[in-house]
Amino acid sequence: MKTNRLEAFSDGVLAIIITIMVLEMKVPHTVDLAGLKPVLPVFLSYVLSFIYLGIYWNNHHHLFQATEQASGGILWANLHLLFWLSLFPFTTGWMGENGFASTPTAVYGFVLLMAAIAYLILERAIIAKEGRESLVAQAVGQDRKGRLSGALNFVAIPLAFVSPWIACGLYVLVALLWLIPDPRIERKLEKREQ
Amino acid sequence: MKTNRLEAFSDGVLAIIITIMVLEMKVPHTVDLAGLKPVLPVFLSYVLSFIYLGIYWNNHHHLFQATEQASGGILWANLHLLFWLSLFPFTTGWMGENGFASTPTAVYGFVLLMAAIAYLILERAIIAKEGRESLVAQAVGQDRKGRLSGALNFVAIPLAFVSPWIACGLYVLVALLWLIPDPRIERKLEKREQ
Amino acid sequence: MKTNRLEAFSDGVLAIIITIMVLEMKVPHTVDLAGLKPVLPVFLSYVLSFIYLGIYWNNHHHLFQATEQASGGILWANLHLLFWLSLFPFTTGWMGENGFASTPTAVYGFVLLMAAIAYLILERAIIAKEGRESLVAQAVGQDRKGRLSGALNFVAIPLAFVSPWIACGLYVLVALLWLIPDPRIERKLEKREQ
Amino acid sequence: MKTNRLEAFSDGVLAIIITIMVLEMKVPHTVDLAGLKPVLPVFLSYVLSFIYLGIYWNNHHHLFQATEQASGGILWANLHLLFWLSLFPFTTGWMGENGFASTPTAVYGFVLLMAAIAYLILERAIIAKEGRESLVAQAVGQDRKGRLSGALNFVAIPLAFVSPWIACGLYVLVALLWLIPDPRIERKLEKREQ
Repeated sequence: MKTNRLEAFSDGVLAIIITIMVLEMKVPHTVDLAGLKPVLPVFLSYVLSFIYLGIYWNNHHHLFQATEQASGGILWANLHLLFWLSLFPFTTGWMGENGFASTPTAVYGFVLLMAAIAYLILERAIIAKEGRESLVAQAVGQDRKGRLSGALNFVAIPLAFVSPWIACGLYVLVALLWLIPDPRIERKLEKREQ
Repeated sequence: MKTNRLEAFSDGVLAIIITIMVLEMKVPHTVDLAGLKPVLPVFLSYVLSFIYLGIYWNNHHHLFQATEQASGGILWANLHLLFWLSLFPFTTGWMGENGFASTPTAVYGFVLLMAAIAYLILERAIIAKEGRESLVAQAVGQDRKGRLSGALNFVAIPLAFVSPWIACGLYVLVALLWLIPDPRIERKLEKREQ
Repeated sequence: MKTNRLEAFSDGVLAIIITIMVLEMKVPHTVDLAGLKPVLPVFLSYVLSFIYLGIYWNNHHHLFQATEQASGGILWANLHLLFWLSLFPFTTGWMGENGFASTPTAVYGFVLLMAAIAYLILERAIIAKEGRESLVAQAVGQDRKGRLSGALNFVAIPLAFVSPWIACGLYVLVALLWLIPDPRIERKLEKREQ
Repeated sequence: MKTNRLEAFSDGVLAIIITIMVLEMKVPHTVDLAGLKPVLPVFLSYVLSFIYLGIYWNNHHHLFQATEQASGGILWANLHLLFWLSLFPFTTGWMGENGFASTPTAVYGFVLLMAAIAYLILERAIIAKEGRESLVAQAVGQDRKGRLSGALNFVAIPLAFVSPWIACGLYVLVALLWLIPDPRIERKLEKREQ
């Protein structure tokens, strides 16, 4: 089994999730800039989720570039990841529409956490198939960044009940971890091409 | 006619169906965990439908990997399958929003049944084109698992009026039949690659 | 310019249009079969539009299989076709929700007509690029079936004000014209492969 | 990193944005042509946005045809562009539903401007990767047309408060700039193929 159709399907699902989230931003019924004010928290939560989905798409893209073949286990591990990502529009809307209240912010973090775990499972499923000496196993390694992200998300969930802003700060921190380019990975990828 | 565009189109439709279903989960207007309570049955029906669509995507993927060429009949048999799958968001929403009442649960099963029949028709259309000695004909065979699934779905429809939970139990059973990997198929696929 | 990305984009748009239409079928709030009664006309108009979009996808698929290169004009002619097709969910919903009243049924036919014209324009744009001796020019020819479909749609619009059922009968007739396989085209396609 | 998956993902997002906008056109509850009257401004804003997204898709298509490899920076510059384009359904709906009032029309222009800037950033990111002597650098050049479009959008924002129709006139003008084929680009593309 080649991975190209799995990639195309995942691209499709991710593209729809990222675009459907914008439907949670309801068109205001007033025509002045004040009409945008209630939309602002929904917009901010949309930006955050957009960045997360962008990060997942980027990482997924890199991961499968190093993967040669798919097994039944990989297909289901991938669907499991897409399942948790598909809940992003729901939790994004709930958090945004309620102005980052504690419970919705914690539930948002829970779905982030489950997606992070699903991604780690997907990595293990691929390495189990490709072997420990494979390119993908070397590129992924222990995925310390992935584990750290998951841990920060885990910590953020109870902290959302102390203050939702601490939780949101942690979500932003995790996103920044991935947005800032990692020179070691780029180097490894460049080497591979040679 | 090659099958790649048929696969891409089917991937697109399946990706959208799977993602649009989540829109039936309306964002709650309260901010505590109790606000998630009315969403729970919708969520459970979403999980069930997500798994079914994942199974269809997996099987579709396998089926067309063994198919070399498409005919007009195959294109329409495929669209017929996509039609029934496209009704999943509607029946999932109806069943979930009404807490698994008898009639919506039976109608959910009816659409499952029609999709199962459409899949069997698609298999026959492909075998008719590729020939009885073809790879795909050998891989699919009598598709006893597919027929059994259809039969269980058929039985579940009247049983939904006895108790919706019996029907749902059967839907879950059919899903489990496909989720648990089938060693014979994997073996056949591995042989093929050699 | 190759045509593969144009095809992928069109597949995406068509896949979304076909799936978004189902959102017009609102989940009923009652749990008996009578709850499905108001959904029935919406369902029937959905079936009709699904078949039309299936026909367009099939024809589009065949057309671009015979097309080698895209020009700027072809890209825009294709977008023009997608524009009219993108109005299907709106006209389908309007016609279905009002139980096939005259005006919505006529407007539905108008969009069908514009899509048929857009398709003929797309064919001309492709033949202009590929040349009159090209494979695609021979396969398409005068596209008498396409012109006949457009003419029947044109006639149906005023007839919708006499009786919407005459108009709907004509829409169904046009669909049947395309659903019933045309042996001459299949033969031509088979010859081409040799 | 090859660009094909980036293109497929962008196609998916663009296809969904273009189709989701049509959901802002709410099905009227009356059955005469007068029922379409309140839909008209929404329809006109939909047509405008459809054309803009068509232009972006066309330009994106041309740009990546000349691009050989993607870097992390290009992936994020592309996601940044998709982010602003994903706001089109929101601003289109707001502008259309309020009959082209000043503020929504200005906000519409702001998102157009940000998308234009994001596109210029994407071009720079690609040229930075491919080199100043590359095909893509020569084809894009200074992208004076892109800069002019951005400038016109920038001017239109304050003018929306003088008269929304001046702003809309400028939006239409920018669209026409791109719709009318540019012989120099076509020539350059043809030369490249030789």
